[in-house]
Amino acid sequence: MSRTAATRLPEMMSANRADLDALLDRTVLGHFAFTGEDGRPVSLPSVIARWGDQILTHGSTGSRWLRRIAAGVPVAVSVATVDGVVVARSAYASSLLYASAVLFGAFTPLAGEDKLAALDVLTDRLLPGRTAEVRRPTAKELAATTMLAMPIGEWSVRLSDGWPEDPEPDVAGPAWAGLIRFGVPPATLAGAPDLRPGIPVAPSAGQVRGIR
Amino acid sequence: MSRTAATRLPEMMSANRADLDALLDRTVLGHFAFTGEDGRPVSLPSVIARWGDQILTHGSTGSRWLRRIAAGVPVAVSVATVDGVVVARSAYASSLLYASAVLFGAFTPLAGEDKLAALDVLTDRLLPGRTAEVRRPTAKELAATTMLAMPIGEWSVRLSDGWPEDPEPDVAGPAWAGLIRFGVPPATLAGAPDLRPGIPVAPSAGQVRGIR
Repeated sequence: MSRTAATRLPEMMSANRADLDALLDRTVLGHFAFTGEDGRPVSLPSVIARWGDQILTHGSTGSRWLRRIAAGVPVAVSVATVDGVVVARSAYASSLLYASAVLFGAFTPLAGEDKLAALDVLTDRLLPGRTAEVRRPTAKELAATTMLAMPIGEWSVRLSDGWPEDPEPDVAGPAWAGLIRFGVPPATLAGAPDLRPGIPVAPSAGQVRGIR
Repeated sequence: MSRTAATRLPEMMSANRADLDALLDRTVLGHFAFTGEDGRPVSLPSVIARWGDQILTHGSTGSRWLRRIAAGVPVAVSVATVDGVVVARSAYASSLLYASAVLFGAFTPLAGEDKLAALDVLTDRLLPGRTAEVRRPTAKELAATTMLAMPIGEWSVRLSDGWPEDPEPDVAGPAWAGLIRFGVPPATLAGAPDLRPGIPVAPSAGQVRGIR
């Protein structure tokens, strides 16, 4: 059986690539699972960004885990957001409102123009338009950074939604039921202590909304 | 070298158990990494709750991945929150404000009174006080649920904090720098369509604040 086939609750599975992209474009953390050099599983969170049909991640060339996945070992990346709570009339029927995805594959290092372009994608993913506000990366910075890409190939998405579904005896009982939905977190800005006077807030930072 | 020893940015590592607990107590999702039956890594998000010195997770007895980790295979669980963005004067020096942890170990199924108590911990973790508002689990529901616990033993925590640190030439330049901090997301409630008239909003649901 394929790893992306649902064994249960198949109605929550989506085969719609647009659902995957929507989730990837509203989350910034992926959790990277791979097998360590000692054969045991490792899981690490790191920033991801979708670049067309690829997932990007990056970090220091000194990072041990990044070196491991840069070598092309099999990787699973999971992403998830908690969007609320489905409050049923029993603990059993209650659940989270969430969206989640798992992507399987392997990463390859990017170099040259691809690496530069991917860095811009990651920067603008966190702060839209930021690359136009700051200087270009230096050769030293580029040399200190590993940029990796994984094709979006084998994946699955799971979306929970809808109202609680209680059996009739519970509906007739005294317990409340409903949905709690979480909104977008507020974002507050503070200038750095060493910010020189007269420098206005960056438009990129001013428009950031909280990441849930 | 131990898997929980930092190879870089060791100043971001915390050996303080209180930091781990604080993170676990404000996140509800863990990302579970383990090796699948085909030898390839798997990563899956699921609800977690800390119960003293253990991490709990649960799900359907029909869940393939839960059966896998219930068998005691080595597992790594990562948790993370994105709390803001450190906006430096270069893309290179910018980063996320985050807290993350990875726990290593293996899960064991709980049964009997331990299982019942753990279910209450998980329910009250999502909706504080909810177990006092709803009926007790039925024997059928208990039989359909797998409850797993992993001791908090081998773990690492990484906390980012503080202002951007730009080199002097960048500080003297035109770019803005600062911190964006995300607040707690707003939570909105809606009663279920089949809610009987006259049932007030559950106090547990009314007090839930958004999970970041």
